[in-house]
Amino acid sequence: MSIASREVHLIARPTGMPREEEFAIVEQVVPDAADWEIQVKNVYLSVDPAMRPRLSVGQPLNEPLAGYAIGRVEQSRHPSFKEGDLVQNWSSFREYFVSSGSDVSKLDVDPALPASVYLHALGGSGFVAYGGLLEIGKLQDGEQVFVSTAAGSVGSVAVQIAKMKGCYVIGSTGSDEKCRWLKDVLGIDAVINYKTETIRTALKEKAPNGIDVYFDNVGGDHLNAALPRMNLLGRIPVCGMISAYNTPGSISAPVTTLSNIIYKRVTLRGFVGTDFMHLREQFAADMTAWLKDGRVKYRETFYDGIENAPKALIGMLNGANTGKMLVRLSG
Amino acid sequence: MSIASREVHLIARPTGMPREEEFAIVEQVVPDAADWEIQVKNVYLSVDPAMRPRLSVGQPLNEPLAGYAIGRVEQSRHPSFKEGDLVQNWSSFREYFVSSGSDVSKLDVDPALPASVYLHALGGSGFVAYGGLLEIGKLQDGEQVFVSTAAGSVGSVAVQIAKMKGCYVIGSTGSDEKCRWLKDVLGIDAVINYKTETIRTALKEKAPNGIDVYFDNVGGDHLNAALPRMNLLGRIPVCGMISAYNTPGSISAPVTTLSNIIYKRVTLRGFVGTDFMHLREQFAADMTAWLKDGRVKYRETFYDGIENAPKALIGMLNGANTGKMLVRLSG
Repeated sequence: MSIASREVHLIARPTGMPREEEFAIVEQVVPDAADWEIQVKNVYLSVDPAMRPRLSVGQPLNEPLAGYAIGRVEQSRHPSFKEGDLVQNWSSFREYFVSSGSDVSKLDVDPALPASVYLHALGGSGFVAYGGLLEIGKLQDGEQVFVSTAAGSVGSVAVQIAKMKGCYVIGSTGSDEKCRWLKDVLGIDAVINYKTETIRTALKEKAPNGIDVYFDNVGGDHLNAALPRMNLLGRIPVCGMISAYNTPGSISAPVTTLSNIIYKRVTLRGFVGTDFMHLREQFAADMTAWLKDGRVKYRETFYDGIENAPKALIGMLNGANTGKMLVRLSG
Repeated sequence: MSIASREVHLIARPTGMPREEEFAIVEQVVPDAADWEIQVKNVYLSVDPAMRPRLSVGQPLNEPLAGYAIGRVEQSRHPSFKEGDLVQNWSSFREYFVSSGSDVSKLDVDPALPASVYLHALGGSGFVAYGGLLEIGKLQDGEQVFVSTAAGSVGSVAVQIAKMKGCYVIGSTGSDEKCRWLKDVLGIDAVINYKTETIRTALKEKAPNGIDVYFDNVGGDHLNAALPRMNLLGRIPVCGMISAYNTPGSISAPVTTLSNIIYKRVTLRGFVGTDFMHLREQFAADMTAWLKDGRVKYRETFYDGIENAPKALIGMLNGANTGKMLVRLSG
């Protein structure tokens, strides 16, 4: 039956760090599923750094915020779906929606794993870590690896893949608690708390053999510090530049060390998951196995209720999460 | 017979733009060739931007300045060489030297071409332009191309290869006279005089369809201006960063627009000619044909006498050359 559904709208464009008043929670009535349709109730919304640039360019005002979600089919008048099926979708931040089925994909959750991991370690975050390191970064066994935002949903997977490949791994993160998790649980070789240490000085000490692959999620000061430490023919897969997302015009902290790119013949490459879709099946098989046998560990931070989605997004941009930031919807 | 030979020594390390007093012209006696040796008199010394970083790191003090040259065999007691043969060498900046033949390679000059082109269009400069555009930059027909130091020995070849591939080519250079040469002789589509124009503003107007390949010889302000104009999946082969060569620690002008690397999935890659040695023969065949039929044009700036080599190097770093800067030795 038709149902009241709340959704998150962007109502004003942020110029720096987004503020709660730039979002509104709007109620809509979602109709019943017609023939060849399904009605879906979202269960988890995925809160991602890449959402921030879209708030400046791309996300229409006064419409639901674009984002990934996992939902459950509540009504089905479509032969490919039955009630209770879980579906991954790009339905935007709303509680309910109706779909023809073409914009959702059925999710077969491994019984040993929670559905939420399909939004991070087994989803886009894990996939960009996997392909970014192996395909874009051409990571070799035993190399020297630096990962920024190492305790985040992408970084923590990158750290663990590099450790499995016998690499020496240095990570940066923003709290002592996250540093401890990286050391004690993920077995990282060295950590830098970028809020209390100078990255450039710390890297000199903690990357004594230089850096072969810098998995960059941050840009700006992190990139500026990493470049002088790069080894010959080093690779910098650029997965994100979160340091620039909240500045007008996406201007980053000044990078003045780029001449190392020529001295060390370094490759810097921005990428997204669609750059290596041929790895999708191999990734799913590998990551499912790694999660099940505990070789890849993860953490999740949940904010409950769609009314807290703006808080979750702002919190994630401020590093309030450990591991993946998710909004959990009741029911 | 043994002969007095002058050579250029570095006697003090420059911290910024090199000054003449940091070099000395030193006379040595070069012995006759012994069995299995040749005595060579250099004819042309190649003055290259890449020499500048070595003055800070790599070039020993009080020893001949490393550099490429073309010389003529004066004495031969080696069966592979005869008097009068031309040889390419990495013999350093000196008038005469004795060699076992293992560190020189015989130069077969095409009778339609001057020997000096083997130090630029047909040498390292032309080769890095060729491989940098085609192999590293993966240049496709009809793309939008931006070349910095477009009137230099590397840039001018890059411009002409891109034009042959039907590309729209924008070039930056430092004088109106060079701008005219690029327009009137090389047929470039748009020019920027970076000394009188703001690169970023000029690029907006002169690259209306963005940039697919930015062939970077400069870094710093040029790179900062080019990044926001890059098209999706753009490539930036980084051949040099001359803007950073004369600063302490090779620090460049601040680059704050690197977030475009992630938004546009751009690849930035530092390279040297040895990264694509498999192209060497194809390059030599192509470039010889292009020079002979006039599809590739060039200019040369000669400083005469080894005593003027420091002036030539400093002049080249200040843009005093058009096309290739060479030191011509008498005889």
